[in-house]
Amino acid sequence: MNSTTSLREPGADALDSVHLRGLIDERLNAFLDANCDRQPHLVSLIEHLRGFLTAGGKRIRPLLCMVGWHAAGGYGDTGPVIGAAASLELFHAFTLIHDDVMDASDTRRGRPTLHRTLETGADATTAERFGTNSAILLGDLVMVWSDELLYSSGIDHERLVAVRPLLDAMRTEVMIGQYLDLLATGKPNEDVERSLAVIRYKTAKYTVERPLHIGAVLAGADQALLDVFTAYALPIGEAFQLRDDLLGVFGDPSETGKSVLDDLREGKATALMAHALHAAGAEQARMLRSLVGDPDLDEAGAETVRGILRATGAADKVEQMITDRVQRARRVLDETPFPDEVRKTLETFVTTTTLRTT
Amino acid sequence: MNSTTSLREPGADALDSVHLRGLIDERLNAFLDANCDRQPHLVSLIEHLRGFLTAGGKRIRPLLCMVGWHAAGGYGDTGPVIGAAASLELFHAFTLIHDDVMDASDTRRGRPTLHRTLETGADATTAERFGTNSAILLGDLVMVWSDELLYSSGIDHERLVAVRPLLDAMRTEVMIGQYLDLLATGKPNEDVERSLAVIRYKTAKYTVERPLHIGAVLAGADQALLDVFTAYALPIGEAFQLRDDLLGVFGDPSETGKSVLDDLREGKATALMAHALHAAGAEQARMLRSLVGDPDLDEAGAETVRGILRATGAADKVEQMITDRVQRARRVLDETPFPDEVRKTLETFVTTTTLRTT
Repeated sequence: MNSTTSLREPGADALDSVHLRGLIDERLNAFLDANCDRQPHLVSLIEHLRGFLTAGGKRIRPLLCMVGWHAAGGYGDTGPVIGAAASLELFHAFTLIHDDVMDASDTRRGRPTLHRTLETGADATTAERFGTNSAILLGDLVMVWSDELLYSSGIDHERLVAVRPLLDAMRTEVMIGQYLDLLATGKPNEDVERSLAVIRYKTAKYTVERPLHIGAVLAGADQALLDVFTAYALPIGEAFQLRDDLLGVFGDPSETGKSVLDDLREGKATALMAHALHAAGAEQARMLRSLVGDPDLDEAGAETVRGILRATGAADKVEQMITDRVQRARRVLDETPFPDEVRKTLETFVTTTTLRTT
Repeated sequence: MNSTTSLREPGADALDSVHLRGLIDERLNAFLDANCDRQPHLVSLIEHLRGFLTAGGKRIRPLLCMVGWHAAGGYGDTGPVIGAAASLELFHAFTLIHDDVMDASDTRRGRPTLHRTLETGADATTAERFGTNSAILLGDLVMVWSDELLYSSGIDHERLVAVRPLLDAMRTEVMIGQYLDLLATGKPNEDVERSLAVIRYKTAKYTVERPLHIGAVLAGADQALLDVFTAYALPIGEAFQLRDDLLGVFGDPSETGKSVLDDLREGKATALMAHALHAAGAEQARMLRSLVGDPDLDEAGAETVRGILRATGAADKVEQMITDRVQRARRVLDETPFPDEVRKTLETFVTTTTLRTT
């Protein structure tokens, strides 16, 4: 363990998510304002981006970055680390913008996706292409700006250099996850390990482990604390995504705000589907292969798939995988002398992200 | 002027472009090899990228980065600055990969574009989408890796921090150029200033000014040297692109390796076209507007356009713009006490990039 961990307790509201979210969004807005002033050519693109950022999002990565910082004994002026946390959100916006282009998604956060809203004003004949190209460019710009926000956040040089390998790792890892996902999508298969590799890269490492690491290193954490975070983050990140996969098929759209047909139509290669295909009889497997990945799948077809996911025990198996992972993450929390506020936040994260219904 | 400039002469072959190109490509290959070892999931993508990088490209940006470094008195081990120079080439590869996706181009450097080669092996029904998505992702990855290459190049921390704002500026500027280009393409207009703004961002600043600045700052240059480079780079960068625009319409495809129909079919909003529209009579303007931007334009139509570009004096006007800019750049060279090798390289760059036929 990092010897500084138990020395300094963050204030009682230091990790309050509403409070932190306010600070992070304020920083993001100030950054966008400054760029509007500096880059008059980009004002319209920037306002599209602002609309996207303010429409929603849980700010999980910035919040975990702040948890990491406090866990490693970060104290004093939070300004610089808030900038770093906000830069993770900006990087995430980049991944979402490109993800929506690649999936040709029409909605995100209950609004039209950016490549759709960017079509506005273009000639009808070229609108779709213009929207897509503008979104690719805007995504690129947002990635560049996530760096700029980090480097202008006031973090001292030594810490910036120390955090760089983690940042590089995070970025490459999320790309690996996206690429494995791209290779697998539309072709669900029995390979549970492969589906777990995707969520390890795309979610466990990118969303949970690296933000904690980055925050911790910005407060000077040693490797021992990073290892503890890894031991916590990988199971909880996997559990988070396994829950997401279940909700994507069995969830209540009025609660999740997400269609229960999209994952099935897309043919997402989840652990749920891998377990089902593995346990399925010949007829069940045939049904799954014909229905999953069909872009025109209707609710009746989806209900057939759900029946097979239940009958093969795949749904129960994924619930069990979640339970196992939650237990592993909780064990790490039990064994680690985190400051109270940090522990509370990490415990809440376990509950809200894996036992959730939305 | 930077007081160190005339103190230290680089060796006679320090800026030899064949020699430098060898060093830069060696570094790029070593970086890709290391990533193949570290990221087995990405080996196939990396080999596509290697094919792209080795197929061609003039390495202008890395070479100018080295010029900047030597001009500012850089000396000793060139290893770190070669890494920085190579990282500019990697960043440039990112812009080209995404550019080809956005333009839906089929060829680049005499080979199929990456989004086309990445289609290989995918199901026929989804191949195009898979190729495009893989290329978007690969572009993203290459941008991330350009940073990683820079930060792992052995440049000391102080210099890395000093160069950061220039790198951020370069990246944002090229995006601005791309975006202005996107807004203007297909709708050629009389606005010469706007067409010059595009090439200032996309070429003059991105390709010439910033690489010189970045190399110079890595050797500790002061603002005076950066200002000299700006005074040289902006005119010569504009001249470079103005020449490119002329060759894109009047060039000899057997020499340029580039179709003389593409720019016209795409409706590229060049200064050449702006001058022509400005000077055109009603009938000439009508012809230009109906032919330029027509994706099915044939050689006969192109010849009509060329006739109008000559008759309106637009072609001569652009030649004059090139001459003016070459003179301005040469004046800067005359007035600045650059080391001999640096001067020679900058003079050669003027000649080869603006008086070229390819």
